[in-house]
Amino acid sequence: MSDTGFHGVFPYLVSPIDAEGRVKDKVLGDLVEHLIGAGVHGLTPLGSTGEFAYLNNRQRQRIVEVVVEATRGRVPVVAGVAATTTADAVAQAKRVEAAGADGILAILEAYFPVADAGVEAYFRAIAEAVGCPVVLYTNPQFQRSDLSIPVIRRLSEIPNVRYLKDASTNTGRLLSILNATEGRMTIFAASSHIPLCVMMIGGAGWMAGPACLVPELSVRLYELARERQWEAAFELQKPLWRINQAFAKHALAACVKAGLEIRGFAVGAPLPPQASLDAGARAELAELLHDLDALRKGSRIGTADHH
Amino acid sequence: MSDTGFHGVFPYLVSPIDAEGRVKDKVLGDLVEHLIGAGVHGLTPLGSTGEFAYLNNRQRQRIVEVVVEATRGRVPVVAGVAATTTADAVAQAKRVEAAGADGILAILEAYFPVADAGVEAYFRAIAEAVGCPVVLYTNPQFQRSDLSIPVIRRLSEIPNVRYLKDASTNTGRLLSILNATEGRMTIFAASSHIPLCVMMIGGAGWMAGPACLVPELSVRLYELARERQWEAAFELQKPLWRINQAFAKHALAACVKAGLEIRGFAVGAPLPPQASLDAGARAELAELLHDLDALRKGSRIGTADHH
Amino acid sequence: MSDTGFHGVFPYLVSPIDAEGRVKDKVLGDLVEHLIGAGVHGLTPLGSTGEFAYLNNRQRQRIVEVVVEATRGRVPVVAGVAATTTADAVAQAKRVEAAGADGILAILEAYFPVADAGVEAYFRAIAEAVGCPVVLYTNPQFQRSDLSIPVIRRLSEIPNVRYLKDASTNTGRLLSILNATEGRMTIFAASSHIPLCVMMIGGAGWMAGPACLVPELSVRLYELARERQWEAAFELQKPLWRINQAFAKHALAACVKAGLEIRGFAVGAPLPPQASLDAGARAELAELLHDLDALRKGSRIGTADHH
Amino acid sequence: MSDTGFHGVFPYLVSPIDAEGRVKDKVLGDLVEHLIGAGVHGLTPLGSTGEFAYLNNRQRQRIVEVVVEATRGRVPVVAGVAATTTADAVAQAKRVEAAGADGILAILEAYFPVADAGVEAYFRAIAEAVGCPVVLYTNPQFQRSDLSIPVIRRLSEIPNVRYLKDASTNTGRLLSILNATEGRMTIFAASSHIPLCVMMIGGAGWMAGPACLVPELSVRLYELARERQWEAAFELQKPLWRINQAFAKHALAACVKAGLEIRGFAVGAPLPPQASLDAGARAELAELLHDLDALRKGSRIGTADHH
Repeated sequence: MSDTGFHGVFPYLVSPIDAEGRVKDKVLGDLVEHLIGAGVHGLTPLGSTGEFAYLNNRQRQRIVEVVVEATRGRVPVVAGVAATTTADAVAQAKRVEAAGADGILAILEAYFPVADAGVEAYFRAIAEAVGCPVVLYTNPQFQRSDLSIPVIRRLSEIPNVRYLKDASTNTGRLLSILNATEGRMTIFAASSHIPLCVMMIGGAGWMAGPACLVPELSVRLYELARERQWEAAFELQKPLWRINQAFAKHALAACVKAGLEIRGFAVGAPLPPQASLDAGARAELAELLHDLDALRKGSRIGTADHH
Repeated sequence: MSDTGFHGVFPYLVSPIDAEGRVKDKVLGDLVEHLIGAGVHGLTPLGSTGEFAYLNNRQRQRIVEVVVEATRGRVPVVAGVAATTTADAVAQAKRVEAAGADGILAILEAYFPVADAGVEAYFRAIAEAVGCPVVLYTNPQFQRSDLSIPVIRRLSEIPNVRYLKDASTNTGRLLSILNATEGRMTIFAASSHIPLCVMMIGGAGWMAGPACLVPELSVRLYELARERQWEAAFELQKPLWRINQAFAKHALAACVKAGLEIRGFAVGAPLPPQASLDAGARAELAELLHDLDALRKGSRIGTADHH
Repeated sequence: MSDTGFHGVFPYLVSPIDAEGRVKDKVLGDLVEHLIGAGVHGLTPLGSTGEFAYLNNRQRQRIVEVVVEATRGRVPVVAGVAATTTADAVAQAKRVEAAGADGILAILEAYFPVADAGVEAYFRAIAEAVGCPVVLYTNPQFQRSDLSIPVIRRLSEIPNVRYLKDASTNTGRLLSILNATEGRMTIFAASSHIPLCVMMIGGAGWMAGPACLVPELSVRLYELARERQWEAAFELQKPLWRINQAFAKHALAACVKAGLEIRGFAVGAPLPPQASLDAGARAELAELLHDLDALRKGSRIGTADHH
Repeated sequence: MSDTGFHGVFPYLVSPIDAEGRVKDKVLGDLVEHLIGAGVHGLTPLGSTGEFAYLNNRQRQRIVEVVVEATRGRVPVVAGVAATTTADAVAQAKRVEAAGADGILAILEAYFPVADAGVEAYFRAIAEAVGCPVVLYTNPQFQRSDLSIPVIRRLSEIPNVRYLKDASTNTGRLLSILNATEGRMTIFAASSHIPLCVMMIGGAGWMAGPACLVPELSVRLYELARERQWEAAFELQKPLWRINQAFAKHALAACVKAGLEIRGFAVGAPLPPQASLDAGARAELAELLHDLDALRKGSRIGTADHH
């Protein structure tokens, strides 16, 4: 699929791995089919939710291959590339593009702190190694070295560095980035931001784990925002935010995997020593999904003021 | 002034203090007059911007008296009360109410961490000591012990605990609080949030230092949001956000005091050992104010789609 | 008492305050008498343990007066001075010296971060305001603006800035400070350091809350270190460290106050909303004190290899 | 080499990697020979200094093979094993033992926080997978999930979990661990602790990067401590601490690699995007090494009070 501008709802896919460490192709393919059927605008394997930090490069590559194949070009696939060294990141990015991904979600892992010049060089090297668009990933909570606004501004001058996904909780930072990059950067929200707020300030959509569990409602919210039905959108955003609250409370991958198991996808548990959700949290999540399903099916919420 | 529901733009007032430690009554009174003339909906002395942490109780009380007197009931005055001990906070709150304040902005200072039960008891004691409405102040950046959502929910059951002002950068937290308090809590933004986003999710306005420097534009933004002119509001919010960016970069009190000096109010420097803005930052701020003044006078921004 | 070089064990005194906010003179005087009788080398009112952050200036001044009077010049009194503004700190320091304190323990409180130049100016102003020696207090855990090593080096050039007490847990930092100040600075440990280690690297003693509860054992440990009986000292340090572990686990003031109540001093609870130790922690502390009393009375520990 | 109890100075080895990502066998072998010649008591490849976080498993395994081969059983080799998943850690540990390592330095990497039960399970799985002794590695600065003292106590019951190396700056924590594990755990310092202090409280030695650059002086310091020549040891420790200060100031791997280049070992730069030391820092380091060489050659420091 050619890049006509990423936008909309991109669920972060989980990585279903069996006890021998093999990717469960069938489960992952089924999930892809289900999400595309629900109307999502793209797919993002190998984000935080996809446990990129817990997979080796062989597993990562297989995840991308399975997702690309199952997608069959119907929506863009933007695959995560994460490394501590520039060399590893560049090699991953090339392999991911060769496997057919439509974009790269570029993540810097760090053990020792990296200064601004090193951060910039890392992302620049990835962008220059591929032809496809690159999404910068910023996450001050989990990455030790974050992208400062001056670095983002300089990186935004590179032609294929066109997107940014911010996983901080600081929504104001997104507006600061938009102000600093003067139209060269398109912004996506993460599950830590209120999607509606990010849309309001000019965002293009969101890349987030919860969208795996509530794809239709997410798409409906996106459409309302695009149609500038702001009040109707907020009526939907308010109850839908409860799922982001659940994700903020529990470990992200554990929570999405538990939710998908409830939904009938045998994605398994997060890789040890990560813990699965305990019974209480799982019951709470099941109830929440049940409530949101009722909202999806029964209600006219989000459509009330359609003309 | 009786409480008919706080809402709108409440500038955080600075505290002008002379070299002998006396409140500069005239300067403070002039600032109050200027802001009310510009249309603000309320005034908040003794917030962070008001350097509450740098004033003794005698100075704090004088600040409240001067502000109440200069306001003459035209808008509500919500005065900060901050202490490490419950006893000090209760005594301050009573004095502030006796001096004529219309509401209390309740702040917990802490040296040793305080558990949830202690945090709750502190705010409960303040609320029970006064008859006026209480605004809970949460600021994880500067307060060592923050208000957790369960504590906020319990406090929201107290009749006169009706407002909350959050100075984190986490806008999603505000929606979580709104979800948790089921209509019993009215939310104000701080300068760390995008005011428009907070209005969009149901906020009542903002209490913030920058509104001292751009009161008319702040009021216009508020009115556009109230009229649900969301696109027009965002057209104004985007350039206006630059002043919040400046405040995030520099120390809050130093920045607002420097801006008011530029505006012609002899509010002086922040109290030593706090530093004033250096010449470079001051020039940058002067230029920004100049740009925003041009926006205010010349442009039709924010009014384009008025019917 | 003239300053012939502070050294040895300086217990941090608690601040016994009654329900009306008055200093309990008798209890505090009794504690002073008890500690001097046990052989301590000095007394430190108004440190962290002394809840300086919870007292107003009138209460603080009274604490110093009572301690100075009860001490009757038998050991030096080094009193805490803590403020957010330079003006308040200087005024406190003058009053404390006038009340007869032999030294000042200088503490910077901060709400907004303070740059190095401001930190330096604050401590310099205190030192120049008094004739007595000044002890710099560094505590990265509770102070927002800490003393960097370059600032400490510059301050060490001031004649009466002669001591430093570090409340970080980073013992290596103390040796770095000793290296940087080339003999101009005498170092005291806090309860977060192993006193014996600090003595080994050239420290002069310790200022710490636990010494209120185990003054004789603390003095014995100090003497063994001074006599370079390192192995014997460690035999005592090892079990004695358990009390520092207890203090690290619980809030400092709550823990020392609980221990003194067990010891029979009616010092009361920490000021609300601080919590007292719960029953479990109190029982654990009582058992620990019982064990250490047995060590003190029965055993020859710490004297075994005396010649 | 059979395990007769690890003790003494274990330099953390750097990982020399060429531009194609291959281990520079000759350089690494030469470094091993040099350090054994200088009298070190063991070698530790793949610690933080060894950039374990920047190497893939193939590179890691090669590093261990080269070190084991060059060592020829003269001193024990304790090799780092680091992973986010239990499965990867267990596989690495088995390969490392099969390659001839005498012990495992077990490190937990984490992206999402891991609860105590998961941390314990991770280390337990490694210990059960090998026959050799396991050294627990704790580093709150760089590891997101640290070993709590209760977890350490439980792990110390496993027969081959016999050592712990702590890379916090909190020396008191080491004594707390010694108290909690009642003789079942032998402690090593890292470069963030004063080695002499750790020896004083019962430590067995240190595993640290600086020992690569000053092996003879490190060994001399160790011997003085073992002979309980505490004052002579401190005379040496004090100037020697300056190299730890340098390592605390700069990135660890960059600093040791720069120092070894100065020493004539072509170990290269840290892997990009990590930065090399800049010219100023390099000159400072060269001067420091020059001073310490003078200390080593000329002076009688550290031997003055030998009987």
